[in-house]
Amino acid sequence: MKSDLFAAIEAGGTKFNCAVGTGPDDIRASVRIATTTPTDTLHDVMEFLQNASKLGRIAGIGVGSFGPIDLNRQSDTYGYITTTPKEGWKYTDLLSSMGELFHAPVGFDTDVNAAALGEYTWGNGEGCDPLIYITVGTGIGGGVLVNGRPLHGSLHPEIGHLFIPAIQSDAPNPDGICPFHGDCLEGLISGPAIAARWGAPAETFPADHECWGEFSTLMALALSNLILTLSPQRIILGGGVMHQAQLFPMIREEVQRMLNGYVQTNEVLQDIDNYIVPPGLGDQAGMLGAMVLAKQAKGR
Amino acid sequence: MKSDLFAAIEAGGTKFNCAVGTGPDDIRASVRIATTTPTDTLHDVMEFLQNASKLGRIAGIGVGSFGPIDLNRQSDTYGYITTTPKEGWKYTDLLSSMGELFHAPVGFDTDVNAAALGEYTWGNGEGCDPLIYITVGTGIGGGVLVNGRPLHGSLHPEIGHLFIPAIQSDAPNPDGICPFHGDCLEGLISGPAIAARWGAPAETFPADHECWGEFSTLMALALSNLILTLSPQRIILGGGVMHQAQLFPMIREEVQRMLNGYVQTNEVLQDIDNYIVPPGLGDQAGMLGAMVLAKQAKGR
Repeated sequence: MKSDLFAAIEAGGTKFNCAVGTGPDDIRASVRIATTTPTDTLHDVMEFLQNASKLGRIAGIGVGSFGPIDLNRQSDTYGYITTTPKEGWKYTDLLSSMGELFHAPVGFDTDVNAAALGEYTWGNGEGCDPLIYITVGTGIGGGVLVNGRPLHGSLHPEIGHLFIPAIQSDAPNPDGICPFHGDCLEGLISGPAIAARWGAPAETFPADHECWGEFSTLMALALSNLILTLSPQRIILGGGVMHQAQLFPMIREEVQRMLNGYVQTNEVLQDIDNYIVPPGLGDQAGMLGAMVLAKQAKGR
Repeated sequence: MKSDLFAAIEAGGTKFNCAVGTGPDDIRASVRIATTTPTDTLHDVMEFLQNASKLGRIAGIGVGSFGPIDLNRQSDTYGYITTTPKEGWKYTDLLSSMGELFHAPVGFDTDVNAAALGEYTWGNGEGCDPLIYITVGTGIGGGVLVNGRPLHGSLHPEIGHLFIPAIQSDAPNPDGICPFHGDCLEGLISGPAIAARWGAPAETFPADHECWGEFSTLMALALSNLILTLSPQRIILGGGVMHQAQLFPMIREEVQRMLNGYVQTNEVLQDIDNYIVPPGLGDQAGMLGAMVLAKQAKGR
């Protein structure tokens, strides 16, 4: 008899990471699909899922998507990507075709809430309440778990767009690039923002380049505000830009300097090396979080 | 037979608001005690409670306190006010004497988490998830409920100390006054900060004074960040400074301008008049929230 499998789809602005399996040590099939048009990309996703369903019954599907997305089950556009600036993807229905095809329950959340869930279940966030997961890549997104469950509310966190105090910048083009907010966090230190402001792709700057000092200060301002708001038990920083490992000690030091002894927690004062950390699941956090969403959907 | 009563203590930096009863429509006795020294103030609180206990059995005690406080039940200093800058109150044990005297369970949280709980139970926050309550008075504090329960984590929210972008200020003394952070929210727009920066007590400025325009912009920056982080279903603004009713429409307009259409929720776009609101319980939110804490302590 074929065993129950779960399908995980991390829907990102650059690629869709898809897998079928039961957990990090049991991935039966996986594929990366470029994010082009909704029609083409979703066609390839469905093809992958149909082929993968020959390996076992798909008992649940989980989708963690870039956003903003509609998480309100009472809404006509539940399961849609909504007002994204991404060309061609505004008001895209991600879910209805998948669920119907496999007669399987579908879990749905933001890519970053999913990544937080992945880290909480199998990675560096086990048992942390609240837990924050932030990814810094082509955009900046943040997921939040409270009591182990993704934070929703009237929408979902949009931590990438936090307003932060301006600091003196030596960037050749200091202005932020967010089309909505200019100098918000994403507008200043996402990968494309670093490239636009400092004049070359982020990954081409050496570890001791001044752009990373500025990055650390700006990120530390955002994290300080998140600590003051959510009082998280851990913050995980992932995404392509955070592959620059030198950033972690720089960010930690800046957070301590800014909070200036006001937040008297062991995490901030003594144990910050275990407080602001990279993902335990590396770049698989989002996909594995989508697998947790699939399992939770089955369990409902 | 005497009925079960609940004791509520809102421990503030200026006064302790104490009451005994069962809810907003059934307050049997109440008193305001000036916050002087821990010994004197707590003596008067105990005296009030002993007298009030003749009205009925005290079945639970709730304390909502200014902070930072220790909420960790495993800690040696659980129930203490910890690193407060308030003269004489550092590491003050609030709870142990009360619980022992009445053999009653004691609920404990921040004054602002308590106020959020009061508004959620009996005021303007019913059913809102998440719910944020912010008070602007001698300091700025914020409480957060998620799933109807106060947010804790490694400590508790300290929203008053959020870092916000600097704006052009015409204040005679533009610098912020927070001893920890200078220009954080509390350092810029608490009552004493307004007085220090604009040269006269906040309540003496007319409704159209420019200090209120600056106040609204700075508060809107903080609220925009809280909306982007917590995605609250409602934000309640209380405290003495918020008695200036003209501030509400000004703050709402600034929040819409700053978010700039990015957060596509009905609350932000269409219904902001019911999104950023004054407390339904007026200045009794904290005390009544402490009564909810007392009832929850009994129910545990």
